[in-house]
Amino acid sequence: MSGAAYLRNCWYVFAWGDEIGESPLGRTIAGDPIVVFRGDDGLVALEDMCPHRFVPLSRGTVTDGVLECAYHGLRFGAGGRCVFNPLGDPPEAAKVRVYPVVQLHAAIWVWLGDPDRADVALIPDFAFLTDPARATVTGYTYARADYQLAIDNLTDLTHVQFVHRDFQASEAYPRLEHRTWQEGDDVYRAITFPDGRPAPFIAGAMDPEKRIDITMETRWSAPSLVKLTASVTEPGRPDHYLFGNYSAHLVTPEQPGTCHYFYAHSRDYGVDDPATDQRVREWQRIGFGEQDKPILEAQQARVGNRDLMKMRPVILPTDAGGVRARRILAKRILEEERGIAAEPTPEPAQ
Amino acid sequence: MSGAAYLRNCWYVFAWGDEIGESPLGRTIAGDPIVVFRGDDGLVALEDMCPHRFVPLSRGTVTDGVLECAYHGLRFGAGGRCVFNPLGDPPEAAKVRVYPVVQLHAAIWVWLGDPDRADVALIPDFAFLTDPARATVTGYTYARADYQLAIDNLTDLTHVQFVHRDFQASEAYPRLEHRTWQEGDDVYRAITFPDGRPAPFIAGAMDPEKRIDITMETRWSAPSLVKLTASVTEPGRPDHYLFGNYSAHLVTPEQPGTCHYFYAHSRDYGVDDPATDQRVREWQRIGFGEQDKPILEAQQARVGNRDLMKMRPVILPTDAGGVRARRILAKRILEEERGIAAEPTPEPAQ
Amino acid sequence: MSGAAYLRNCWYVFAWGDEIGESPLGRTIAGDPIVVFRGDDGLVALEDMCPHRFVPLSRGTVTDGVLECAYHGLRFGAGGRCVFNPLGDPPEAAKVRVYPVVQLHAAIWVWLGDPDRADVALIPDFAFLTDPARATVTGYTYARADYQLAIDNLTDLTHVQFVHRDFQASEAYPRLEHRTWQEGDDVYRAITFPDGRPAPFIAGAMDPEKRIDITMETRWSAPSLVKLTASVTEPGRPDHYLFGNYSAHLVTPEQPGTCHYFYAHSRDYGVDDPATDQRVREWQRIGFGEQDKPILEAQQARVGNRDLMKMRPVILPTDAGGVRARRILAKRILEEERGIAAEPTPEPAQ
Repeated sequence: MSGAAYLRNCWYVFAWGDEIGESPLGRTIAGDPIVVFRGDDGLVALEDMCPHRFVPLSRGTVTDGVLECAYHGLRFGAGGRCVFNPLGDPPEAAKVRVYPVVQLHAAIWVWLGDPDRADVALIPDFAFLTDPARATVTGYTYARADYQLAIDNLTDLTHVQFVHRDFQASEAYPRLEHRTWQEGDDVYRAITFPDGRPAPFIAGAMDPEKRIDITMETRWSAPSLVKLTASVTEPGRPDHYLFGNYSAHLVTPEQPGTCHYFYAHSRDYGVDDPATDQRVREWQRIGFGEQDKPILEAQQARVGNRDLMKMRPVILPTDAGGVRARRILAKRILEEERGIAAEPTPEPAQ
Repeated sequence: MSGAAYLRNCWYVFAWGDEIGESPLGRTIAGDPIVVFRGDDGLVALEDMCPHRFVPLSRGTVTDGVLECAYHGLRFGAGGRCVFNPLGDPPEAAKVRVYPVVQLHAAIWVWLGDPDRADVALIPDFAFLTDPARATVTGYTYARADYQLAIDNLTDLTHVQFVHRDFQASEAYPRLEHRTWQEGDDVYRAITFPDGRPAPFIAGAMDPEKRIDITMETRWSAPSLVKLTASVTEPGRPDHYLFGNYSAHLVTPEQPGTCHYFYAHSRDYGVDDPATDQRVREWQRIGFGEQDKPILEAQQARVGNRDLMKMRPVILPTDAGGVRARRILAKRILEEERGIAAEPTPEPAQ
Repeated sequence: MSGAAYLRNCWYVFAWGDEIGESPLGRTIAGDPIVVFRGDDGLVALEDMCPHRFVPLSRGTVTDGVLECAYHGLRFGAGGRCVFNPLGDPPEAAKVRVYPVVQLHAAIWVWLGDPDRADVALIPDFAFLTDPARATVTGYTYARADYQLAIDNLTDLTHVQFVHRDFQASEAYPRLEHRTWQEGDDVYRAITFPDGRPAPFIAGAMDPEKRIDITMETRWSAPSLVKLTASVTEPGRPDHYLFGNYSAHLVTPEQPGTCHYFYAHSRDYGVDDPATDQRVREWQRIGFGEQDKPILEAQQARVGNRDLMKMRPVILPTDAGGVRARRILAKRILEEERGIAAEPTPEPAQ
């Protein structure tokens, strides 16, 4: 609460598609309590509060394709209106807010702002997540850290050398190359660990003495959606691709100071190998749950409800992506508050 | 806290009588921390804070019929004065507030307001709770929900069809009859499930195919004291009583957003049957602890410290009792704040 | 938080010396998050927040004698400056606040105020803690109670008769003698249980029928450092010393309403006896953790963020030491805020 401003005319990930089966699911998204369920005509996202006694509708059940409140049995359909009252006519006034919702790229997305502007084409491309030629492992964790701290984390992957040392540290780190660029409002970063031996996470899968280049490229899209492309190539020959993976890091603010973190790892090798699935799952559990999350939560404890940028952090060259992403996000939130249609932010002179 | 206004010239249930034996018991009642113990001359209720160093007196022990502070051994008697100082004369200034307290109908009641107005006759009739011809099972639960949400719950029993579905749901629900009336400031509600087969909770005790009327009548008395009379009768013949029970639902506000819930179930059949006791206890544990409480706490999370009625809830005909009870309570609190003697609230035209 | 004023030009105990080995340790001291580690040239105390992304430095590791941030590997040395950046020159602006720190009397002390005034000679004498002729058992507990409540506790040991009844209660209590005096800004209290049989804690170690005097003398030094000298003597002959012990009770505020409590028990008998160590440890665990702490935390719950003295507590003669200690502390905090050099507080007329 505390009047934090969020971008509203945008898609937020509400859940992975497979999180919602027969039961409704309730989550708070950027301050709005929302319930999503699968109705007769597909996904429905509603304000998660019955207008009668204000019980969360997500405590209810999907009955005859609509959502029945757990307290007194009022039922709500896709249009947000009460469509059934077990003891009489549905009251006219009984209606809840409806949110545009869509399932795409294995995720369920909700749109918080003006429904007329809810264009599915605005969802960034994460088509790899449903590519049948790939093996994709997804997961979710909840963090007591503001989503903007996660943006910083994902747009500056130099942290892998320290936070994920046991998986990702490379002797090539001191020679790290990195660059930042922008396409429209998307911010790209690439870091390359040049000419080093494989990091622990991949050392088991190849000759541990072989010298390679590892490149991690991130594409950040507002509000906090990151596609990461990791590739292993012959030293100095980026066109000699050996192997790699994509991953998705989709962060949704819950309230100020807390966020939902949806992650996915997608590979085009060992696609039918459960042992590799398991190894990926282990990496996600430890890497995100036990390494990133405690760092972000410790940061949150220090930053509290202050604006990190106003605390005058020391800025390193490797922060270029994060600073730009925060600036774009702040500008778009401001434009939205002023009623200005969002335009791509021009790339600033560095 | 937060300036919530409570009715003070009224009796609140502090505990069941059997909760207080040799040790004192401390609870916060409508914002006031109170300790009750059994002294030489009977029950004593005091402000639960030693005037010396402000340790709760409820951490102490009953010694020689008075209450000894756990920290430095000052002792306080029925009059609220320090009656013993282990190292000298009791200091004149050492005294705490005394609350009128009485044990009646198996419960211990405290009066928060003007002691001169603490008339035991103002306690509503729950004499069935100590009727030796009946078997009564009592219990207590603490809920992170405002007591007014419990008033709504108890004055609109249509929720049993949904919240307590596995115990109480009836095929007769769509034909439910209900009415609301008032006697003085007491609000009555009756709902009848006409001509249906027995609900699961009683189906084992009778012919499960037999058709019956089930009626639940509630009497609400300010601030939040409910007597529920459930009766099973021959269809359409309310005078042909088969069996039934009384229950008490005595809700005491602790602080804004939390309450104490004292419940009791009293029957005149199977009075000496421990198996029936056990079945009742199970119903109370699940029905109140695992069904009602989570609903009320989820409601509380949505409503927060707002006034529910100011959130403009949709009002159903079945809310007639709850709305009236809230109105009477609000009126009496207002009168009390303005120093007007409480008069029964005239029954409004519906 | 909430603008609580602490004395800053003074030493606070940060940890026992043996709490800090190869890893850094982070604690909040009087509102300041501080990290202490053992660097190449000894102890270093820094602001516990990396100036880059505000992650607590205490999550990092000591590397090459300096402290490496867990997030991006910046390293900070004794001077508070960033001395190593793995990807380039250390940024000029990357520096954190340095606190004077010293290890003395088995404890690690930090100074929050003006570093130029951080004189080790201002640490009260607790030399017994490192006396090789003595056996000393130390411990730590964290309490959700304001440190000033611990001052009251430690400057009025009459509470042992009640709070620590099973260890310390004496039949001589009603004849208790006590006095209060002051030396500079140090407040002394002595209580004597005259001519009684041994309390339970020592009854096993001597003739349980022998009559003795037990005296407990406390020396309080600002902000909240107490030396307790307990001695057992022949009745009426204080020079006929039988045995005794010293203990240290070093309380450090964390935030308003919480404190760190460092305790130590030091004896000159049974010095090499592990069974006695164990008995002392048991006393500390129960006495402080299960007896004092719940009392202080219950007090805190009642007092909240109010100033206890403004709640107009009843003052007993036995509070003389605590009242004086609080007065001296308040005066010194006020002087510090006004920029007046601290002077010993004259002993008030009683």
